Parts: sequence; structure tokens; C-alpha cells
Amino acid sequence: MSIKLLITGGTIDKAYNMHNGELHFVDTHIPEMLGEGRCRADIAIETLMLKDSLEMTDDDRERIAAACREATQRQIVITHGTDTMTETAEYLQQRIDGKVIVLLGAMVPWVFRHSDAAFNLGAAVSAVQCLPEGVYLAMNGRIFAAGAVRKNRDEAVFEPL
Amino acid sequence: MSIKLLITGGTIDKAYNMHNGELHFVDTHIPEMLGEGRCRADIAIETLMLKDSLEMTDDDRERIAAACREATQRQIVITHGTDTMTETAEYLQQRIDGKVIVLLGAMVPWVFRHSDAAFNLGAAVSAVQCLPEGVYLAMNGRIFAAGAVRKNRDEAVFEPL
Amino acid sequence: MSIKLLITGGTIDKAYNMHNGELHFVDTHIPEMLGEGRCRADIAIETLMLKDSLEMTDDDRERIAAACREATQRQIVITHGTDTMTETAEYLQQRIDGKVIVLLGAMVPWVFRHSDAAFNLGAAVSAVQCLPEGVYLAMNGRIFAAGAVRKNRDEAVFEPL
Amino acid sequence: MSIKLLITGGTIDKAYNMHNGELHFVDTHIPEMLGEGRCRADIAIETLMLKDSLEMTDDDRERIAAACREATQRQIVITHGTDTMTETAEYLQQRIDGKVIVLLGAMVPWVFRHSDAAFNLGAAVSAVQCLPEGVYLAMNGRIFAAGAVRKNRDEAVFEPL
Repeated sequence: MSIKLLITGGTIDKAYNMHNGELHFVDTHIPEMLGEGRCRADIAIETLMLKDSLEMTDDDRERIAAACREATQRQIVITHGTDTMTETAEYLQQRIDGKVIVLLGAMVPWVFRHSDAAFNLGAAVSAVQCLPEGVYLAMNGRIFAAGAVRKNRDEAVFEPL
Repeated sequence: MSIKLLITGGTIDKAYNMHNGELHFVDTHIPEMLGEGRCRADIAIETLMLKDSLEMTDDDRERIAAACREATQRQIVITHGTDTMTETAEYLQQRIDGKVIVLLGAMVPWVFRHSDAAFNLGAAVSAVQCLPEGVYLAMNGRIFAAGAVRKNRDEAVFEPL
Repeated sequence: MSIKLLITGGTIDKAYNMHNGELHFVDTHIPEMLGEGRCRADIAIETLMLKDSLEMTDDDRERIAAACREATQRQIVITHGTDTMTETAEYLQQRIDGKVIVLLGAMVPWVFRHSDAAFNLGAAVSAVQCLPEGVYLAMNGRIFAAGAVRKNRDEAVFEPL
Repeated sequence: MSIKLLITGGTIDKAYNMHNGELHFVDTHIPEMLGEGRCRADIAIETLMLKDSLEMTDDDRERIAAACREATQRQIVITHGTDTMTETAEYLQQRIDGKVIVLLGAMVPWVFRHSDAAFNLGAAVSAVQCLPEGVYLAMNGRIFAAGAVRKNRDEAVFEPL
């Protein structure tokens, strides 16, 4: 496999809980999304956790970093909640060398009719095959280097620092 | 605007004709797709034609080439039918210098529930920002250089030559 | 089972053929639609044929009539193409007694994002439980008695005669 | 107009709030749903409130009853949250005469890919045209008389008492 895809949770993978009317995690939808995208890239998927990124700790970030180091692949895609995606990107940038790492998430969960999830996943899978070594975010149709991007919470978009 | 997006038609933009039960072109869905993807890349859209790529002539290809040359942008994305996408890519490769050109289409029109359109559009918009000058296809989650790819019609996927 | 659901094809069940870009029949989507509607009505499904209703012959109509007669259920729902739905309804009306029969179809196949299929199926499953004996169409949010309705092809809607 | 459609909120009309990742009310989706269903029934829509049905008070129920009384139409459809739908149905049954009233909601909001909303709306719009005077629920592909139905919260379905 030439790409490692690490799943950590985030809005992209939230599902509807009929019993309380809230969103929660059940299982990842990433394989279904890759299927819908008719993706034939060589991708090895590993689910590390299914977490809201506001609840992500440095222990979780270290687990992600360890998975990046252990991956035999040079190209790594990571799904992640948008709230602390920039922090995890910077954490990885300071600790991982010799890899191309692209983080992505979604503003609207994939299970919604008008989600940005498929667009963003396509962007990340594509970017990881084209970019030089480093850590990046693929969000809002743009590619940002780790450390050069922030989430604008009022507009719910990522923008350059 | 930093990216030019040229629309030429293809499966990605087919719509349902309730009057005869067939698929046809009405108008492009690309702006709606970029909206759903919450795309904030600087993209100038131009609709050159809405054609099934089996009906595309060398005159049409020359129009596409002319639009690439006239574009002030260095980065160009082109939507295209899958049947002759590789031919148009090679045509452009032989005639256009100094540009990054990424073609994309879809195996299933965007108006269907399980379309690959959003995934492919995300891939192309992302790739055009990361790749060096040249002509490429972004399909099936992979990036192919023009001249090094063919459509496998039996499996309905693009694969390396 | 208290409701018999006979499947005959029609637009509602058309799927996309990636190999030639046309619509065709593969298998019915009705069970998936009932699942999405979280339907708990007692329904016994039988696929009689998967036909475009323009190609439906009187032999086909006789097969449908026979299935209505043989059904142990009093309530019968029939999926059908819209082009000759009114003819089949009249055919059944002249031949079947002691049953509540509701035909439905769709103007846009279920596999499209903006299909009327689920709405129409809900309408038919509901109507068959409420109506007195007779043959009816459930289309466009209305209930029509067989013989009192025509398809307006220009506007692609059913309307009273 | 021959049908009055009263909107009161509930799961069916919940939307995604990108700013906090929760579901909330913005505006009703019912007109869009009727459009997708290609509904041509004569329907006059009135939004009474957009409320989670767990927060519905007897004042709210009285407002709904008043709207039913004031409606010039004999046929009334009401969208409603599922948690107290049976209570509102019984409340109306004790207070309203001479009307056909059908309540509906959804287990999954319409904005989700796999919602039961369109199916249920079709069922209610259809039932209100076929049923005799009284108050009913149209859920799970079944028609229940007010007072003879309960929500099974464990299975998230409505069932006979």
C-alpha cells in the first residue's frame, strides 16, 4: 500500500443518534466514502480513535505521531476534527520527518445531504500524492502548510495566518 | 483569481430529463459542487461547452487549448467526459507550456446519490495547486500524467498505461 | 403480511449504467427505500418484472392482474412506470374486485439526489391502508381513481381528467 | 387550498449548526420536501413554531388546536417532534371536531442522507386525503388513530398500544 490513512474521528465521521437526537460516533464512513469516490489509490486504513477534536489530548496526539512514525508508507492522510486540526498539524510537524502528511476533516458530517466530506477527502488523497515532505491541511479547497493556517470560527473556514 | 476552471461537459454535468427519461445537459453543477465543498480557493469558472466527450472534435479541443493559453492563471482545472479525457489531455500536453492543467470528470453524474463527482473535483482542485507544470488527470483517487494513462472501459476505471 | 407490494419496474427503479452512460434496470431499490422510510407495515414484496412501462404489453398487464388475484392480501401496492400507469390502472379496475390497489412510480429515479420516489412510496403505502376497494394512483401528492386521471406529458405531472 | 399544513418543528426540520456541531432550527424544509416530491396537492403551509417536541407546552398545544379550528380546510397535516406526538394527537382529538388531522415527523432529520422524512410526509399528505374525520399519526409506514399508539423509544418506532 502506498498511502496510509489514519482515522481519528471529528465531524466528518459523526452519525445521528435516533435515541437522543444528537450526533455521536458509531463507526467510520471513510471506506464508504472512498468507495463512492471510486478510489483506486493504494490505501491502508487504520482507525486510531473516533474522537471529537476538542477532546483530543496530547496523549492522543502522541498516538497519532507514533502511527505516522510506524507507518511504512511515506504518504499519510489523517482525518481529524476541525477544532484542533491546526494544533495536531503543528504537533506532527515538530516531531515527524521524511513523510508527507495531509490532514482533513469536514465542516458538515458526511451523513448529511450537503456535506463537504467527499470533496475534502478527494483533496487530501490527491494532495498527499503531489506534495513534498511536510505536514499540511486540505480544507476549503485549499492546501495549507502546518503553522501557516488558522480556523476562522465565525465563518467556519480555514484561512492563512 | 489564481485558478481557472474550464467546463466542457461530460458525465459529471449530466442531468435527468423527465420528459424522455434520458440524461442530457441543462446547465453546469460545478458552482453548486464547489459550494457544497465549501471551497474558498480563488476560482474563475468559464463554461466552454457542455458536450459528451464522445462527440468532442479537434475543433473543440482547439477551443480548450485556446482557453488555456488565454487564461491569465497558471493553474487550470478542466471538467471533461471520461471517454476521451486521455485524448484531450495528450492534445493539450503537446500544445500548452507553462501551465499546470488537471482534467477531471465523473463515472456517475453529480445528480446521482452515489456519485464520484465531488471526490474527483476536490482531488483536481487540490492537485492543480500542488503539481509542477504539465497536464494531468485526477480520477479514481489517483493523479496520472497525460500520455501515461488509459480508461479501462470494462472496469470503468482509469489505470496506468 | 397485510400488504402485497408488486414490483414491475418503471423510472423509480432505474439505475445508472457506467459502461454506456444510460439508465437501465439492475435490481429493485424498493426494499432499500422502505428501510430508509423506517417502514414497519407488514409488506410482502414480489418482483414481477423490471420493465419500462412503454414496453409493457397486455401479457404483462395480465401477469399483474393474476398476481393481484392470487394475492391473499386485500391491500396491494404496485410500482409502475409513469407512461402507461393509467392504462394498467384501468386494466386492473376492469378485472379485479375486492381489493384496494394503489399504483405509484416516480418522475425521477430513486438513485438521483432529488427524486420523488420516497415521497410517492410513502403516499402509496399509506393510501392503500386508508382507501376503500378500488384501483388508484398515488402521484404528485394526490390520490386519483383509475379512469379519472391522465399524465400531462408536457408538465410531467398527473392531473384529473 | 384544500389541505392546511401546520409546521411545529421536531426532528424532521432540524439542521446542522456548523459553529457548535449541534442540531438546531433555522427554517423549515417542508416546502423543499414537497417540491422534491413534485407535490401538486393544494397545500397552504403555515409555520406555527419550530420546537423540539420535548419542550412543547400545553400553551403550544392550544396554539396548534386554535390553528386547526381556524383553518378553513377540513384536511390538516401537522409536522411534529416524535417524542410527544402522541400527546398532541390526543390533545387535539379531545378538542377538535369535523376535521381530518394527520401528524407526522421523522426519526432522522431531512438534511441527512438516509432520512425517513420524505417517506413520512408523502404518507401523511396521502392519508389526510383518504381518511375519515379524526386525528391520526402517519409514522413508520403505518396509520395510527390518536390514543391507540405509543412511541417505543428503545426501538425508535411507533407501535399500536
